[in-house]
Amino acid sequence: MVENRVHLLSVRGFRAGAVHAGIKSGHALDVAVLVCQTSATAAAAFTTNRVVSPAVIIGRRHVAGGQLRGVVVNSGNANACTGRRGLADAIAMCRLAAAHAACEAHEFLPSSTGIIGQHLPMDRIERGIAAAFEFLGNSREHAMRFAEAILTTDLKRKQAAATVKIGRETIRIAGVCKGSGMIGPRLAVPSVGASRAKHATMLAYLTTDAKIPAAVLRKILQAAADRSFNAVTVDDHASTNDTACVMASGLVGRTISSSADIAKFARAFEQVCQSLAYQIAADGEGATKVIRIDVLGASDEPAARAIARQIANSPLVKTAMHGNDPNWGRIVSAAGNAGVPFDADKAVLKLQGTVVFRRGQPVRFDDAQVSRSLDAREVRVELTCNLGKARATCWTCDLSRQYIRINADYHT
Amino acid sequence: MVENRVHLLSVRGFRAGAVHAGIKSGHALDVAVLVCQTSATAAAAFTTNRVVSPAVIIGRRHVAGGQLRGVVVNSGNANACTGRRGLADAIAMCRLAAAHAACEAHEFLPSSTGIIGQHLPMDRIERGIAAAFEFLGNSREHAMRFAEAILTTDLKRKQAAATVKIGRETIRIAGVCKGSGMIGPRLAVPSVGASRAKHATMLAYLTTDAKIPAAVLRKILQAAADRSFNAVTVDDHASTNDTACVMASGLVGRTISSSADIAKFARAFEQVCQSLAYQIAADGEGATKVIRIDVLGASDEPAARAIARQIANSPLVKTAMHGNDPNWGRIVSAAGNAGVPFDADKAVLKLQGTVVFRRGQPVRFDDAQVSRSLDAREVRVELTCNLGKARATCWTCDLSRQYIRINADYHT
Repeated sequence: MVENRVHLLSVRGFRAGAVHAGIKSGHALDVAVLVCQTSATAAAAFTTNRVVSPAVIIGRRHVAGGQLRGVVVNSGNANACTGRRGLADAIAMCRLAAAHAACEAHEFLPSSTGIIGQHLPMDRIERGIAAAFEFLGNSREHAMRFAEAILTTDLKRKQAAATVKIGRETIRIAGVCKGSGMIGPRLAVPSVGASRAKHATMLAYLTTDAKIPAAVLRKILQAAADRSFNAVTVDDHASTNDTACVMASGLVGRTISSSADIAKFARAFEQVCQSLAYQIAADGEGATKVIRIDVLGASDEPAARAIARQIANSPLVKTAMHGNDPNWGRIVSAAGNAGVPFDADKAVLKLQGTVVFRRGQPVRFDDAQVSRSLDAREVRVELTCNLGKARATCWTCDLSRQYIRINADYHT
Repeated sequence: MVENRVHLLSVRGFRAGAVHAGIKSGHALDVAVLVCQTSATAAAAFTTNRVVSPAVIIGRRHVAGGQLRGVVVNSGNANACTGRRGLADAIAMCRLAAAHAACEAHEFLPSSTGIIGQHLPMDRIERGIAAAFEFLGNSREHAMRFAEAILTTDLKRKQAAATVKIGRETIRIAGVCKGSGMIGPRLAVPSVGASRAKHATMLAYLTTDAKIPAAVLRKILQAAADRSFNAVTVDDHASTNDTACVMASGLVGRTISSSADIAKFARAFEQVCQSLAYQIAADGEGATKVIRIDVLGASDEPAARAIARQIANSPLVKTAMHGNDPNWGRIVSAAGNAGVPFDADKAVLKLQGTVVFRRGQPVRFDDAQVSRSLDAREVRVELTCNLGKARATCWTCDLSRQYIRINADYHT
């Protein structure tokens, strides 16, 4: 059940603090910590880019044991391509946070997002972490400040939450994320295996008060990531820093262990991740609309995902949708480039519910009416392959002049 | 030797005709034929998109025997996603051309380019083919008209030629092509095997007066396509119609058969294809500059190509280059997403000859000076992986507001 009253910190056991440390300009919040009062069961998924930030290297190492006390994040600087000094800085972030939380450095997962190739201003980071710990709290305001501190080019904070009844107890699940450009995550939970999906810096942090084994949490995170973060693309660019981390405080109910309970929890968890992923597409650089692509009747799920992603990443499709142009030829042609089984003679394509192409042939439709229907905040592309029973959904945004402005005029 | 005086029709044995048949608006040329006075040895490479135009289906069939009398082309309509009627129309185009050339329908290769999902106006096509045959000739003017008739959103005609001395004879090789949007060809010569490269409608027609076996010509075409057309990308979209066709009239010299002669001919042929491919990148939709990406020292050639293409297709890189921004982090990060071996700690990146990143670390450079050097018609990105000895080059263009205008405002 999607839950608007629940937030990241109304989940039992968590507190956060966020401050302006002077990494970003103005007075923007740029250093934040999220801390669990217990030693939380934790799982995290990281970018599969071969070039990774020291934050990812250290994050993988620290989460390997399945336990975390918290995360420490800075925005405005990705600490990527920064060599040995970058690695020492990522470790130092954890050490500084741990000193305030009275735990070990390896109990913190570090994250950084922002410009690549500059060293972190560690004096500011150090003062920032100290100040963040001074203002720890679990109010809605604290949650909003945490959600804000992780942003870079994002225009909006992104948050989602759900509750799920397991036995007699109501478990809470909540999350925040960031991501607007360099979005095309391919997150993988290291110990579960690489995702086949393709996809910027996106960061997501999820909290739950469930009691759940780390091994189960990892599998749930990978499955949810594949159907949410790994299914959203703005520019198909998996960043050096993509990270999704979930911490479970274990403060409510018994251990979730029956397959029915696991499935129930996983469903709610996936809903939260999908809401967050949707918000990334909606806030994609230059976006005026979200494009939801449903591929149905594909030969298998990887093929369904490959077709959906090929359509989602096509600049020809994204510009046509920006112009409210029912240019279905670009969509069908993109599907043919996915490198997986696809037969135009069997396929049926709908735009906003109107069939525009059926089994190899154009279909008569009211061009002006479909064009008007595309002038919406959400546009739905539904391609039925009629080759099998598998399906996948992918979210992207349109490609606008604003995207060019943001990315050509943004100077390093 | 690149040769500016040679053109498509100064190659011995070829004539062409091009007319306005009323498929495109205004008075633009839109139907053309290219005819050889002999039964030419021929090879062709086609799109590897799974959705293909009937022109591609018929073209593959007609060129299979290695002999052609000519090609018949229309622009303004791709005859794609047009079902059985489209297939009959593609065959009819060949039949109509063959009647004028006094040969069989299967001796013509048909091509179409333009909008997807509309039936060809066969009455106009028929009158156009008849008129094109009335005005057949081999003057430079005829070659220019042929090069013009195949264009769609292109702003410029594209032509290239070379001569090569084999024994005592000077062999001529010439070509014309089109392509501006939906450019990311992955051409494969059917009988040689699919290319590994990734990449709109592009059409290319090459003529030579060499005498050369069809099997040799096929291999030369595939190798040349992999290093030219398959190495150019505007939007990474392989179209439903991409075709490159070469015809050899056999009117000059002895049969090219020694490996030294084949290598010599292949080199000149590749030069012509590369010049044509370069012209496609330079005339890419909205392009203000060509970006040449050289990947050196990769583990093997497929890896080198994959890295070059990943960089070339990144909207983050293309917009940075548009803004003259030496944002090397986007380039290094894109390389890490190619799915092949890459180690930032070993790599060295140059922009316009200036080292901006070396072995995992940012390098001090004059940002303003590098930015000024990026304000050029051609920008060179050189990434040395230091993992092996393989190399690859790829060409793309920058991503501008003009690209959005062309593709969002163009209405079907």
